Amino acid sequence: MVKLDFKKNNGLIPAIAQDYKTGEVLMLAYMNEQAFEKTLKSGNATYYSRSRKALWEKGETSGHVQQVKEIRVDCDYDTILLKVDQKGDAACHKGYRSCFFSKVEKNNLKIVETKIFDPKEVYQ
Amino acid sequence: MVKLDFKKNNGLIPAIAQDYKTGEVLMLAYMNEQAFEKTLKSGNATYYSRSRKALWEKGETSGHVQQVKEIRVDCDYDTILLKVDQKGDAACHKGYRSCFFSKVEKNNLKIVETKIFDPKEVYQ
Repeated sequence: MVKLDFKKNNGLIPAIAQDYKTGEVLMLAYMNEQAFEKTLKSGNATYYSRSRKALWEKGETSGHVQQVKEIRVDCDYDTILLKVDQKGDAACHKGYRSCFFSKVEKNNLKIVETKIFDPKEVYQ
Repeated sequence: MVKLDFKKNNGLIPAIAQDYKTGEVLMLAYMNEQAFEKTLKSGNATYYSRSRKALWEKGETSGHVQQVKEIRVDCDYDTILLKVDQKGDAACHKGYRSCFFSKVEKNNLKIVETKIFDPKEVYQ
């Protein structure tokens, strides 16, 4: 069994989702033990929503599921790296491929990516 | 000014360090507001050590500093992505290039990377 350190941060571990082909970092979300087990079983990334306090299969509303190709664990067993196949080409609920579409430039944030979908059409 | 949401997680924000050339995810650590400001000013990644409860300039002992090439912020302003030039070629204190050197395979962890340095020689 893979033993992760869920105790350090109130039962939650940050999980980074990275595109398995390009290496692009798509998003970061959190997993509790149940979410991790569900991800292992289903093969689709399942997180724990801190705002909704519930399991959340990524893409359950948008259809933009993340098929897990590989799972890495860090040296302290308290962070997960998922290499995923991002369906629908976009991970961010704001319509961008990656949630990290803003760059720090001269002490301000500048959007440096292009929207792939219109959130109003996907989340109705 | 770049306003980040430090309130959600007791003043700490996870920061992912990614190799700016290869896209490899090297590690994840945490920043408080002071660490973020120091990173912006110095150009070298500075984190907050949860165990030592102190600022920690990555590489201060090993010399393996992370020169920050680009900073991205996610859509919720609660996660940072640093694109870095990892000096000494290794980010992990266990001697590997990336902290994510273990892969989940058949419900076990398997080391899938090669050590670059011997921690006993670097941390004396």
